[in-house]
Formats: sequence, C-alpha cells, structure tokens
Amino acid sequence: YDLRHLFTGSEGTLGIIAEATIQLTKIPQDSPVLVLGVDSFKAILNVLEAFQNNLQISAFEFFSEQALQKVLARHALQRPCDAGPNYYCLIEFEAISEQTINDAMQTFEACVESGWVIDGVMSQNQTQANNLWRLREDISESISHFTPYKNDISVTVSQMPTFIEKVDQLVAQQYPDFEIIWFGHIGDGNLHLNILKPEALSTEQFTQRCGEVSPRVFEFVEQLGGSISAEHGVGLLKKEYLHFSRSEEEIAVMKSIKTIFDPKGIMNPGKLFDA
Amino acid sequence: YDLRHLFTGSEGTLGIIAEATIQLTKIPQDSPVLVLGVDSFKAILNVLEAFQNNLQISAFEFFSEQALQKVLARHALQRPCDAGPNYYCLIEFEAISEQTINDAMQTFEACVESGWVIDGVMSQNQTQANNLWRLREDISESISHFTPYKNDISVTVSQMPTFIEKVDQLVAQQYPDFEIIWFGHIGDGNLHLNILKPEALSTEQFTQRCGEVSPRVFEFVEQLGGSISAEHGVGLLKKEYLHFSRSEEEIAVMKSIKTIFDPKGIMNPGKLFDA
Repeated sequence: YDLRHLFTGSEGTLGIIAEATIQLTKIPQDSPVLVLGVDSFKAILNVLEAFQNNLQISAFEFFSEQALQKVLARHALQRPCDAGPNYYCLIEFEAISEQTINDAMQTFEACVESGWVIDGVMSQNQTQANNLWRLREDISESISHFTPYKNDISVTVSQMPTFIEKVDQLVAQQYPDFEIIWFGHIGDGNLHLNILKPEALSTEQFTQRCGEVSPRVFEFVEQLGGSISAEHGVGLLKKEYLHFSRSEEEIAVMKSIKTIFDPKGIMNPGKLFDA
Repeated sequence: YDLRHLFTGSEGTLGIIAEATIQLTKIPQDSPVLVLGVDSFKAILNVLEAFQNNLQISAFEFFSEQALQKVLARHALQRPCDAGPNYYCLIEFEAISEQTINDAMQTFEACVESGWVIDGVMSQNQTQANNLWRLREDISESISHFTPYKNDISVTVSQMPTFIEKVDQLVAQQYPDFEIIWFGHIGDGNLHLNILKPEALSTEQFTQRCGEVSPRVFEFVEQLGGSISAEHGVGLLKKEYLHFSRSEEEIAVMKSIKTIFDPKGIMNPGKLFDA
C-alpha cells in the first residue's frame, strides 16, 4: 500500500515526516511568458487547449481586469495591452528550441484569428518575463490592503466557466457591494476567489457576511464535483465544509485510517475533522 | 487523505475500481534510439548520468551480452556493434528539435571519450529505432524456451552495481551451472533477474534450487534498502518475502488498512499477506 502518498497531504494528522529524499529534476531553460487578454472566461479554456495542443507549457494562470487594476495601482508596471479585456491568461513555456518559440507565436496568432484573444504580449527577455509574472504574482499583496476574504477551490477545468458564472451571479444578487477579484492556476482547475471588504463595512460585519457566502460557494463546488480546497489544505478553517467534497463514507474511512496511525489522537489534533 | 493512491498498487485487496478517468498527454514526437556497449555495470550509471544531464530521456534500459546472444540466436537482427561489450544500454529520447539530436550525438561521443562506452549506434529512422528496441524487448520471449526462473526487484540506482555483483558472485559460487540473464529498466532502478534452467536439471529440481536462491537475493535487496517487487506486484508468489522490504510495523498498518475497506476479507483474499 502506498503509505508515502497517504502521508502527503494528511496535514500532520497521521504522523511526523522525519526524513525525506528529494529527486531533483533538470534546471529549466529560458522560459518566455505570454500575457493574453480575452473577453470571456470560456475563451480562456479555448486558449488553454490551443497551447496545450501545440507546446509543452509550464504554467497557465489567469486573472481578471479588476485584479490587474489593483496591481497597477500599487506598482509601476506596464499594461500588457491597451484594449480593456475582462480576463488575462499568463502562459509560460520552456524555450527548448527556436521551433518552440515559433510554435508559441503561431498559437498566439491563431488564438487572435479565432477571436479568443483580443491582444497580448510575449516577453523578449528575462526582465520582461519577470515583469509579466509580477502582474499575476503581485495580486495577493496588492489586495491585502482591502482585508480580503480568500477562498481556494477547484473544479474540473471544463466546469470552471459555469462555476465562475454561478459565483459572480450569487454575489451580484445577494452582495452587490462586494467586489470579486478572481485569479488562479487555471491549468489545473485551481481558482482563488477573493472578495474585498467594502469600506462601509466593519471587519466584523464583513467576516460575518462572508461566512454566509462560503456555504453557498461550496454548494456550487459540490454540484460541479470539485474540491473545497485546491492547494491550501483543510486545517481548521474548512473542516466543517469537508462534507461538500467528501462523502460520509470517505470521511468515515479517513477517520479510521487516522486511528490506525494515531490511536491516541495526538497528531495535529482537531485538524481536518473531529476524531 | 489520498485514497486514490492507496488503491493504486493495492492489487485488488482493498476494493474494486469501478470507474477511472484518464488524463491524456501529448503524443510523443519521433523518438530516436541509441544502443551503447559498455564493459562494466558501473559505466552504465556514468552513461545514465551523462544523458540525464544533457537531455530529457524517455527510456533507459540495459541488457547483458548473454541476453543479446539469446535474442540474436532466434531473430534476424543486427548486432549493435562489433566489439564484445559485457552490457548494453538502450536510450530513447524525443527528438523535439535538431538541437536535441545534436545533444544526443555529443553525449554519445563524450561517453566514448570518457572510456565508458566501447562502441554503439543511433537510429536514423523509425525502422532502425524499432529494430534496436527489439534487441531489448525480444529477450523475454527468446529465453522463454529455457524455462527461466524470473525475478523482478529494485534497488536505488546508485546501489545497482553492488547488487548485481553480489548476485553474480552468489550464483557463481553456489550454483555454477546456472546462467544468469540480466536486463531491466535501469533508469528507475528496476532489474529483471533471469536464471536459465541447465539442461541437466529437471524442472522440478531447478524450481527447488531456485527456491533456495530467492531468499538469498532478497537478503541483498534488504541490505541495500530495495524492494522485493519492482513492477510486477506481490500477489501470491512473493507474499512470504514481503518482510524483506517492509517492516513489521508497515505490514501491521497495511493489514489494519485492509480491515477498514474490506472487513469481511472478500477482496482478492490471500494476496499480499494473510489477514
């Protein structure tokens, strides 16, 4: 039985990892970055498919125009394109040959011709690549000043447009004063939902109202067969929501497995579920 | 907890997989093959390291001169090189660009200059690549006429020269009439040990004497921290040897895990261990 993978992601509830051997991989070669502006979330998936078909990509991220505006308000970075798209995808690939760079350019052009991409840019050197990455990576820090409610969820890549639409609709109807900042690792179905605190609300009021949003969002996750936690774990914050993405039987099995490794319940007690 | 990986490799002892979703990957491009002759097993590891450092390889196999002779005796295939090396490595890589092919040729030449490789060949087209693969892939069928005792074991890649030396020594001393045919997937530490039945022995006598060899081989595996089964599972044949690569505590944990999923003991009963 694969006990190694059982410990991976168990959040310390089964035992302590005292030693790990790490396999190294090849150092990646120069990795150019494209940032492409698109109008609909659905077009992002078309772009993803096109790039996956034509080259080996090492990252496929997305962020919204609102996310970009927050970053540009705080940092002296350039807009990736003039027009005002609703979303952007950031694509990174390893430039293993001249051919790879041509493939990337041709795929970019084909996406423009198909009407999926409005405009975009491809880095010509490492400084440009780093600056394009900052448009995505500086989002978290840029919105931290708005006391954001953060959620980390995943759904199957093909279900993402439906999921985003459902959440956007819910928030527009029930919480019209909330501003949503979307970004995430679209290539593996991992979405970060961020809601910014309206100035008119106290932190307490905001936290309480976000507590009402969470179960609604997790219901959509459940309907679409996703996970309530994509990469940040369950811990304390999400343990009461675990049932939205794990069946009763699965949770019962996990509790029994914990009992085998930790009969006294002393390993990271209280995390994931109550024993 | 990662229940998916827990089922992977559990040999049906935890339950039945009723549905699986498979993620597809890109179709590989043309994949040239090199077969390089070396004198010592240690040199194989030098060649492996050189190729891993200089390009992304998709296969790294090895076989002995004896294995090659068995294949050539039954099939109209060409020797990869004239000189008589003791071992051969077969290396496959994806020809993603002209540069990759040049890198492979340069690494080949560097290995010759370092004295690791005596001689070798690189395929120039798909027919040649297929024929070079047959030198490795036809071994199993070619030795099947000798009623071989087969074993599938793994040790850390760096420990393989020691392991092979120990087994060769044991067999030379205790079973001088036995002929060993070595081959395997060296890139991941996976070795296939094959012993051919001497004509003078009946199948029964041979099976009995091989039964004496197995525990000795597994002792070496244990000393070197390897696994008594590399890719073919434990099943019935190796269940009594499981303790050579799994501790008592691990086996106890696995039995408890089985009890959770299969309290009635009806899932592939008797395999892996006695409940």
